[in-house]
Amino acid sequence: MHDIQSQFAKNIIGHAPIQLKEGGVAFAPSNIALCKYWGKRDTALNLPINSSLSISLGSLGTRTELRLLPETSDSPSVYLNGQLQSHDSSFAKRIASFLSLFPQFGKRCFEVRTENNIPTAAGLASSASGFAALVMALDDLAGWGLDKKKLSMLARLGSGSASRSVYDGFVQWHAGSNPDGSDSFAEALSKPWPEFRIGILKISDAPKKVGSRDGMNRTVATSELYKSWPQQAAADLKVIRAAIAERDIQTLGKTAERNALSMHATMLAAWPPLIYFQPETIEQIHKIQRVRSEGLEVYLTIDAGPNIKLLFLEENEAAVAAAFPGLQIILPFG
Amino acid sequence: MHDIQSQFAKNIIGHAPIQLKEGGVAFAPSNIALCKYWGKRDTALNLPINSSLSISLGSLGTRTELRLLPETSDSPSVYLNGQLQSHDSSFAKRIASFLSLFPQFGKRCFEVRTENNIPTAAGLASSASGFAALVMALDDLAGWGLDKKKLSMLARLGSGSASRSVYDGFVQWHAGSNPDGSDSFAEALSKPWPEFRIGILKISDAPKKVGSRDGMNRTVATSELYKSWPQQAAADLKVIRAAIAERDIQTLGKTAERNALSMHATMLAAWPPLIYFQPETIEQIHKIQRVRSEGLEVYLTIDAGPNIKLLFLEENEAAVAAAFPGLQIILPFG
Repeated sequence: MHDIQSQFAKNIIGHAPIQLKEGGVAFAPSNIALCKYWGKRDTALNLPINSSLSISLGSLGTRTELRLLPETSDSPSVYLNGQLQSHDSSFAKRIASFLSLFPQFGKRCFEVRTENNIPTAAGLASSASGFAALVMALDDLAGWGLDKKKLSMLARLGSGSASRSVYDGFVQWHAGSNPDGSDSFAEALSKPWPEFRIGILKISDAPKKVGSRDGMNRTVATSELYKSWPQQAAADLKVIRAAIAERDIQTLGKTAERNALSMHATMLAAWPPLIYFQPETIEQIHKIQRVRSEGLEVYLTIDAGPNIKLLFLEENEAAVAAAFPGLQIILPFG
Repeated sequence: MHDIQSQFAKNIIGHAPIQLKEGGVAFAPSNIALCKYWGKRDTALNLPINSSLSISLGSLGTRTELRLLPETSDSPSVYLNGQLQSHDSSFAKRIASFLSLFPQFGKRCFEVRTENNIPTAAGLASSASGFAALVMALDDLAGWGLDKKKLSMLARLGSGSASRSVYDGFVQWHAGSNPDGSDSFAEALSKPWPEFRIGILKISDAPKKVGSRDGMNRTVATSELYKSWPQQAAADLKVIRAAIAERDIQTLGKTAERNALSMHATMLAAWPPLIYFQPETIEQIHKIQRVRSEGLEVYLTIDAGPNIKLLFLEENEAAVAAAFPGLQIILPFG
């Protein structure tokens, strides 16, 4: 697996010369999928079964600084929000494993300083922005000058959804069909939608018992209903793209909500059943259905976890905030 | 719709002469599906998309007495648990509508006295046992002497799952494929399994916002994932039949649980999303997964409602009762 990934990275970087700088730095936004990535066709190269579509969260994300220290070491020094992480921590191990895909830097020890400004309590994935920022910082350090498409493919190796976090705004990750992964990358979709809002409804920040990587593998392997997922995702993606182009919140919201709940449905039908919902998740879903039936235009999406993200427009911001006290509202377009 | 149903009933009864008795009486058990009925291919004749398999609940069910009063009336006098029901009540109207399918009895007024010994708080469907008992009482009154297969088909007109309630023990309802419904009937499966236990975990007895009839129609019409349901149900049914024959609670339990959660998954993927789960349903599902991972052999099934039914064997009855205080335990084989 390591060799396959390392070879892929080498092919992407190609003959770009290394022009080492003192250090590299980059910021990448977190993103929330409106059409979910769920299921891999290749686990080594993180190639997805279906294309997905997300919205990046503007200034919420990860800023990463990289330096090469004078000493040699296989274990990078990893700081998260200012705290040195143990070499044994899963966080440091994932970064070490990713950096080991790039033998171009020889045996010199990396210092990685990563800062998340996403409130960890919000239950937003940081691996997407984390790997995107890491790849972009690496590109900055090495002076490769890779284009976004290539950065997207490298970020994908760290975490599938990271492929989308190298862009702002609405982003589509093309699943591609080549076994070598050369056509599986993300690209940004057209113009901004400044009135678009996301609300984070925090249910729980307890660690998940089953990570999304294991969760999707279990679903693909055991869920009969998953067989209908790829067609649904393909259809949803088209509808959501068109709804973005037409600024049609109703179609976008409805399709994104059904897409997310369908993803959870494929898990509910897996064995053992995979249920990221907590009791309060169900309570809030019922509440969202109720306020919507009363006329408030608000929709939801849920990733592989218990927390809910609300989708709505600026014109309903006050009403949504009133209906959901404690909601954290994000302006993806600043 | 009424004419189609009436013609179907006429074909079933055929040339059986009416030999009216003073009254007719019958008991039919309630049943719980282990492989769910979800989706109709014909709404007038209640023909299902998939075959289903259930266990009847022994002495828990409906006892119905029928008499023909001297006076003529289109509206039967309907008593439920001793209480005269208003002609406008949905209960009386459903019975009146069903009895109107049988013009053989002329215009004389029916008196219907029906008693459910299923605790209504248990959240168990009474329409299955209700229509099965009504059809059997009608057969008794008229002296038709119809066989169980024909009674099953008549009961089906009242409520799909009623087709299974004319039998005790494990029962399979064959979906059939004929458009006229002539091969869609239930039959009993082999020998009893006296150690089999069902536990009713009551979550709520509040009326459902969406009945199962509307729920399955919405699912078939709008849920992309439903497209994979018929194959899954067919596969599950085979596995459950074999598990019953082999007294294999693990295979039966696992398959029944996955089947039920998959049915709910098809609803979760519908639009608007159809979620019968209450917050406590999720809490209890998580708990069942936890006690099972700790070694207790207990599985669940859930119908179109928030309540949970546990499946286990006599040998684990004490442990299951201890883990789930307030559980109502049913012995389907007495």
